Amino acid sequence: MTPMTEFARNQWYVAAFADEVGRDLLARTLLGEPVVLYRTEADGRVVALADRCVHRRFPLSASSLDGDRVVCGYHGFTYDTTGTCVAVPGQARVPRTARVAAYPAVEQDTLVWVWIGDPERADPLAIPRAPHLADPGMTTVRGMEPIDCDYGLLVDNLMDLSHETYLHGGYIGTPEVAETPITTEVDEAAAVVRVSRHMPDAECPPFYARSTGIAGRITRRQDIEYHAPCLYLLHSAITPVHQEQPVFRTEITYAITPAAPGKVYDFWAVSRDFAVDDAEVTDFLRDFNHQVVMQDVDALNLLQRALDDEPPGYQELSINIDAGGLAARRVLAALAAEPHRAPDPADAAPAAHDGASPAQGVHATGNAG
Amino acid sequence: MTPMTEFARNQWYVAAFADEVGRDLLARTLLGEPVVLYRTEADGRVVALADRCVHRRFPLSASSLDGDRVVCGYHGFTYDTTGTCVAVPGQARVPRTARVAAYPAVEQDTLVWVWIGDPERADPLAIPRAPHLADPGMTTVRGMEPIDCDYGLLVDNLMDLSHETYLHGGYIGTPEVAETPITTEVDEAAAVVRVSRHMPDAECPPFYARSTGIAGRITRRQDIEYHAPCLYLLHSAITPVHQEQPVFRTEITYAITPAAPGKVYDFWAVSRDFAVDDAEVTDFLRDFNHQVVMQDVDALNLLQRALDDEPPGYQELSINIDAGGLAARRVLAALAAEPHRAPDPADAAPAAHDGASPAQGVHATGNAG
Amino acid sequence: MTPMTEFARNQWYVAAFADEVGRDLLARTLLGEPVVLYRTEADGRVVALADRCVHRRFPLSASSLDGDRVVCGYHGFTYDTTGTCVAVPGQARVPRTARVAAYPAVEQDTLVWVWIGDPERADPLAIPRAPHLADPGMTTVRGMEPIDCDYGLLVDNLMDLSHETYLHGGYIGTPEVAETPITTEVDEAAAVVRVSRHMPDAECPPFYARSTGIAGRITRRQDIEYHAPCLYLLHSAITPVHQEQPVFRTEITYAITPAAPGKVYDFWAVSRDFAVDDAEVTDFLRDFNHQVVMQDVDALNLLQRALDDEPPGYQELSINIDAGGLAARRVLAALAAEPHRAPDPADAAPAAHDGASPAQGVHATGNAG
Repeated sequence: MTPMTEFARNQWYVAAFADEVGRDLLARTLLGEPVVLYRTEADGRVVALADRCVHRRFPLSASSLDGDRVVCGYHGFTYDTTGTCVAVPGQARVPRTARVAAYPAVEQDTLVWVWIGDPERADPLAIPRAPHLADPGMTTVRGMEPIDCDYGLLVDNLMDLSHETYLHGGYIGTPEVAETPITTEVDEAAAVVRVSRHMPDAECPPFYARSTGIAGRITRRQDIEYHAPCLYLLHSAITPVHQEQPVFRTEITYAITPAAPGKVYDFWAVSRDFAVDDAEVTDFLRDFNHQVVMQDVDALNLLQRALDDEPPGYQELSINIDAGGLAARRVLAALAAEPHRAPDPADAAPAAHDGASPAQGVHATGNAG
Repeated sequence: MTPMTEFARNQWYVAAFADEVGRDLLARTLLGEPVVLYRTEADGRVVALADRCVHRRFPLSASSLDGDRVVCGYHGFTYDTTGTCVAVPGQARVPRTARVAAYPAVEQDTLVWVWIGDPERADPLAIPRAPHLADPGMTTVRGMEPIDCDYGLLVDNLMDLSHETYLHGGYIGTPEVAETPITTEVDEAAAVVRVSRHMPDAECPPFYARSTGIAGRITRRQDIEYHAPCLYLLHSAITPVHQEQPVFRTEITYAITPAAPGKVYDFWAVSRDFAVDDAEVTDFLRDFNHQVVMQDVDALNLLQRALDDEPPGYQELSINIDAGGLAARRVLAALAAEPHRAPDPADAAPAAHDGASPAQGVHATGNAG
Repeated sequence: MTPMTEFARNQWYVAAFADEVGRDLLARTLLGEPVVLYRTEADGRVVALADRCVHRRFPLSASSLDGDRVVCGYHGFTYDTTGTCVAVPGQARVPRTARVAAYPAVEQDTLVWVWIGDPERADPLAIPRAPHLADPGMTTVRGMEPIDCDYGLLVDNLMDLSHETYLHGGYIGTPEVAETPITTEVDEAAAVVRVSRHMPDAECPPFYARSTGIAGRITRRQDIEYHAPCLYLLHSAITPVHQEQPVFRTEITYAITPAAPGKVYDFWAVSRDFAVDDAEVTDFLRDFNHQVVMQDVDALNLLQRALDDEPPGYQELSINIDAGGLAARRVLAALAAEPHRAPDPADAAPAAHDGASPAQGVHATGNAG
């Protein structure tokens, strides 16, 4: 039995990429709640409703749209975009209580964010930004993989990039990633964890060698900015070693959305500011990063199965590289325990929306282990 | 967790179509009891024994017949048609207690009925009739599908035909089915629920258009007669609209047999009194109705999975169309709570055997919701 | 719910055939403990380590070897052959507590034996012998099948060969096997159960007819010697009926290793002293015995599923043929309850190592049932 990472309900989560939501009903499960998503014909707005008909609990996602209304595929109960039932079979009167939950949904930076918790606390301004995903000056490849693991395992995975050397050797990892110490910062007020690793003289892994054309060694920076619970940004910059120019910038984005206990959606995107019109580089990065993601998917599915067989009270052993992951676990536990305060405009709020702001209330974590 | 519909043990259930039972051992699970069925060489009688050898619980259905005896496929314990063990390996003496249960079994109307409960209460006269299945003046197509759902979900499904419009649109449903109010009658003494729908001017769905050749609109009657817990009869009659003749009669039969918690056998048959020698119509109705049944199978498998994820105490919302299904649930609960009285010959007994008798003790249910 | 046979931890178990262990990491689960096996580059010795990294519990078997060290495939924690962690990423200091269990492992008679219990009690001299497996005068075919059943079901299966007549009829069983009474002896001190069956005039089953060339009936002896919990030896000898010569000897070996509750490894081998250079006979026996083993595998998988559905407190009915199996269950229960004493050299110890010694402390069991 692996202990499950608690869900923080009063938070925004990515439910889908914007282009996944259209006129076909899309089923997703978010924090254990079944949700059906579609886009209105009238104004192209994203609608997110509870995916269970009030009548007999049939999944609305196995139904069809009549204009902007969802018609249940079993007995025809019909819902408008607010979740209100507007028609039932065999009678004119619709019971007053016939309604399904409509979840706040916001489309931003090519992502669809949904709020499962208390709707009155849903503040769209609190959604963290990933503007590079919509930046016309960058080219992005992306995908999503469901993983059968506790979502905390994916957070662990992404916060500690030393695993690139071993799990992704020959793809994105080189010896220097595991060898180089990290610095870790935590902004508890904003629920942001930052982990940085600066490698002044490192091998250039195939991921960058083939996409940038660099033949020799590189200076490589990895700056993680994790906006708990969902948005993970890895700002990557590489330069030929001992040069100032050119700097190749890559923004690696993950959205980590708990689907249910033991299940997580792994949304990923790779955005670059170089070779933006080169279709061959685009195809390479899409395929290559998909392979990297699948290495994580396979490892985390395997790890979860191993943990499921552990006796209660099994031990982990943490070392310095785990500082970021352990900080993330603390932040997640705090968010789950007491709802994250909506950012106060007079306070550190901008920091949560704009990664360029100077971090406030930041302190370095001690090393673990 | 979906609440499970209780099993009524002291009742007859269809275990198989008569032509499924022969000289190969047939395994079925009825109300959670594993049963093995075969037909004797001597007189062609159906035998139903508990499907577990007394020795080490090996399934007798994975064994073989030696004349009319079952020889366990593991160590050769041999049983006669009464379930008495008559031979064991390595010794002449057979332990006195070596016997498996033999269940009362009756072949009637091309169906094999088995009684799992108290054998002393097994009255063959209490088995409801479906004489059209053996009527030489009708042609019948049939099949059986196991479904991974609570058997109550299949009862719900069949008692409320408004779902034909949505789940079976383009097959057997038209808008009029969902739009037309129903009348519901319950005969609690006989454990029979009747639901009727009369559509004086309706579209003719493909099921009937292609089998009867009717081109225009129709008058359509659906008269359900559910003999709880197992036998469901749908008397269907259609006529070209505004005509008295010809009347095309179709008897749609279902036997709803709980296999185990969350598992049900869905036996179905379609009998017609028209085009009885037309092989093309026969093939069409067999294939087409199989498709219709599979739409239900897929929907009920999906619905059960959805219900399995519901929190305890989830709500349903019932409306007028649910009157028949809710009545059936009440009748099933009563049968499960106290065994159904065997019909008294001086009482309403004939009504339970013969759908043509005038119903006694019948009263209309109020509308739900 | 079938009751699970308790595991006796302070015992030797076969983890693999010797030729399965090499320079690729091999994962096995023994008594519920995940184990990774490999052979050192330095001296070819077998190493058995706990298959979970101390860091985050990642399976070491999904890792790689660096010389004789295991490098975790997730974050590179590196272990030597004693299970001591000798390197971690990102820092020079290795935490003192970083170590995984190393299990005593012994290679003997072409089998790899592993000790999961208290390492101080692991006495290699207590490992029962199967010298025929390494005898240059014999030819052996072998294989391993995992079965999804309680390991006690496989012990039951092998201790009562009357099942050969029914489950393996046409392969190794003939009517005489089921008809002939057995003699059973139990040496509780050595935890050995012996079951013998002597058939003076029996059919020759295809297994022997095709491998020996005997055309007529045979004298057939089956002498089982079960060294609980793991090693099962069946000494088989056949002679043409009414002849003294030639005697065809076959040693059938099973190692019965509980993998986890409800899972067992079924290692099997058939060694013969005749036609030892005949490749056709070798191929025939390998294929034919594999088919026989798969008949058991299928039957035991089926039986376990049947038992899983039994209500608590279900009954078995035992007869004379079960004497060996019931004795084995008692011996296994005793081994699980209090650890098997390491054999005292001045005592019956040689008997446990050498099947040729006269058995001591032996008594016949009464017949059961």
